[in-house]
Amino acid sequence: MRTGADLAAIRERKPLVHQITNYVVMNETANATLSLGALPVMAHAVEEVEEMASIAGALVLNIGTLSERWIEAMLLAAKAANAAGVPIVLDPVGAGATRLRTETARRILDEAEIAVVRGNAAEVATLAGRDAEIRGVESIGAADSGAELAQAAAGALGCVASVTGPVDHVSDGQRTIAIANGDALLGTVSGTGCMSTAITGCFLAVAADRALEAAADALVAFGVAGEDAAVGAKGPGSFHVALYDALYDLDPATLDSRAKVEG
Amino acid sequence: MRTGADLAAIRERKPLVHQITNYVVMNETANATLSLGALPVMAHAVEEVEEMASIAGALVLNIGTLSERWIEAMLLAAKAANAAGVPIVLDPVGAGATRLRTETARRILDEAEIAVVRGNAAEVATLAGRDAEIRGVESIGAADSGAELAQAAAGALGCVASVTGPVDHVSDGQRTIAIANGDALLGTVSGTGCMSTAITGCFLAVAADRALEAAADALVAFGVAGEDAAVGAKGPGSFHVALYDALYDLDPATLDSRAKVEG
Amino acid sequence: MRTGADLAAIRERKPLVHQITNYVVMNETANATLSLGALPVMAHAVEEVEEMASIAGALVLNIGTLSERWIEAMLLAAKAANAAGVPIVLDPVGAGATRLRTETARRILDEAEIAVVRGNAAEVATLAGRDAEIRGVESIGAADSGAELAQAAAGALGCVASVTGPVDHVSDGQRTIAIANGDALLGTVSGTGCMSTAITGCFLAVAADRALEAAADALVAFGVAGEDAAVGAKGPGSFHVALYDALYDLDPATLDSRAKVEG
Repeated sequence: MRTGADLAAIRERKPLVHQITNYVVMNETANATLSLGALPVMAHAVEEVEEMASIAGALVLNIGTLSERWIEAMLLAAKAANAAGVPIVLDPVGAGATRLRTETARRILDEAEIAVVRGNAAEVATLAGRDAEIRGVESIGAADSGAELAQAAAGALGCVASVTGPVDHVSDGQRTIAIANGDALLGTVSGTGCMSTAITGCFLAVAADRALEAAADALVAFGVAGEDAAVGAKGPGSFHVALYDALYDLDPATLDSRAKVEG
Repeated sequence: MRTGADLAAIRERKPLVHQITNYVVMNETANATLSLGALPVMAHAVEEVEEMASIAGALVLNIGTLSERWIEAMLLAAKAANAAGVPIVLDPVGAGATRLRTETARRILDEAEIAVVRGNAAEVATLAGRDAEIRGVESIGAADSGAELAQAAAGALGCVASVTGPVDHVSDGQRTIAIANGDALLGTVSGTGCMSTAITGCFLAVAADRALEAAADALVAFGVAGEDAAVGAKGPGSFHVALYDALYDLDPATLDSRAKVEG
Repeated sequence: MRTGADLAAIRERKPLVHQITNYVVMNETANATLSLGALPVMAHAVEEVEEMASIAGALVLNIGTLSERWIEAMLLAAKAANAAGVPIVLDPVGAGATRLRTETARRILDEAEIAVVRGNAAEVATLAGRDAEIRGVESIGAADSGAELAQAAAGALGCVASVTGPVDHVSDGQRTIAIANGDALLGTVSGTGCMSTAITGCFLAVAADRALEAAADALVAFGVAGEDAAVGAKGPGSFHVALYDALYDLDPATLDSRAKVEG
């Protein structure tokens, strides 16, 4: 892994990261993307998503607040991205909570080539056909350990599986990396999972041929920023604000030495 | 009233609060819900709202940025919630400002059983058929006092009326409670009314059989958090951030002693 | 120019500023509007936009996350605003990036009378038929200088052109004003361009007959707030928060003396 070098590449190249995401976190993922050093763009109209996805460095699909036309737009954008060689990260928010979410995530995985699925344990377990419990969009538990789940899901879904939790696990089915960076306050702010997906898109944009490492890079960078943001935070509000400052201040030169990775 | 005990119950049970709300405040109400200790979920697709509302602890309907499909989704969700015994709080944002808003709020009240209507004086007065003036979504004035209006509206609408302002009033038509907690800075941040509605949903989820008290609980808790957030705030931005910290830090053990309630 | 007096008028009259804007920044532009002293309202349903636009002090159209029904709503609102004498500011977010955005911005300019177009150099250059490069919604470069572009665009589009960048330029084709207020941190937060458009709407609401000055007023006020917010900011997150505090704290009595304007 070369997280620091990949971050430096993001800041130098400023890749465009096209995001079709949910209403709740749009501002948050745009600002996380911009704070890291990439350029976010949100576009969801069926009339323009193919054009936008084709010129992007990466495409982020997030099903957090679905409806019919948005599903249609995600599929169009995904196919255009595939045709243009633009890597895609999928965030299956709430898969397992309603049929619409589970089926839409499966449909995207079936109809397009996805580089990375980034979700919580229950969401990824649902898609991989394994036992799990979800309450709304919050994972309550999964039968497998994070490492087992990531590896099994990568095999079942045919892409990199990125399972976040107290310790994160990313796997391509062969190699599984555990990432222990982060802070408990990340769980107190809505949309931090979605931000980690957007940041996965940023790293994919500069390391499309190393999707496993890009997914791990993103969780290291975001986790280290979370650690920095927690210093001096008084609760979810001040932590949330400090998170953007911390992403902006991430230092490529020291990032690798702060990574808590195994595997 | 047992606001502290109800807050402790929220934090222990982490009820799912399904919110179909406006685009402007989705992130804010999600984070207020999460900071308080409940689990927010946003879902508005007609294909999934019944499923989500049925498993929720409470349903929050907020008409701040309406359109046709969202109205349809709100009605479907409301009926599913009623069938499953899930309490509903309605925020009639901008009722009185346009026909669409007034009629939609009335239609929801007609077609579903609503536990609590939470709005500003002009919005609630409009629905109760009393004189008021609104500019956009801001109440400019109402003919009745807050206490009179809350009591009259509860009678007219057949549910708990929760009217917020410099002093808040909640009434079930029989008993009317005045709540004097809060801070003037709440009026300088967009969406604080919507947040108080979301928090009403959180309390309803643990006290569905005491809707009047749940509505009052919410305004006490939110008002106390507002008081805490105002300490050291320099303006709307820093107050807004501190509000989430304050909601997260609310202490069930001291909350009742800080309530400024009458009635 | 009388920026301080115009700001005082906003605070006294609290004009309603109707915004049909993108999902990413709705909360941000609402809070910027409110912090400045005006009243924001977001409404996009075709069933209500004409009613809302007709009673507003100004209408803000922002094409940052377009779709079919929203375009229809923008055109309806624009025509109703024109009929009622309500001034309109258009933010052509991403014009030049996709055909949908370029064509929609042109269509609004063709079918309604727009008082001010506020955009970055690439967006305004695209609409004025001049060379420019855009990446998503970020201007990468334009062939003309800011002053040349603003003047040429005002002529080509038949309205005030407000081109923001390191130095901003506003022109009505005859007079061109350069505004050097602001801070580099404004470029690190998503939606600050959209906020400047919303604030342009606030000033238009009190100075509709002086559109050029209103556009310049807005950039002076927003730029001075940016300068104040940068003091003590640690990065994009803390700057963003401080920006609302700074807008709220803007002092009409000293604002003119802080304006860095030429022309």
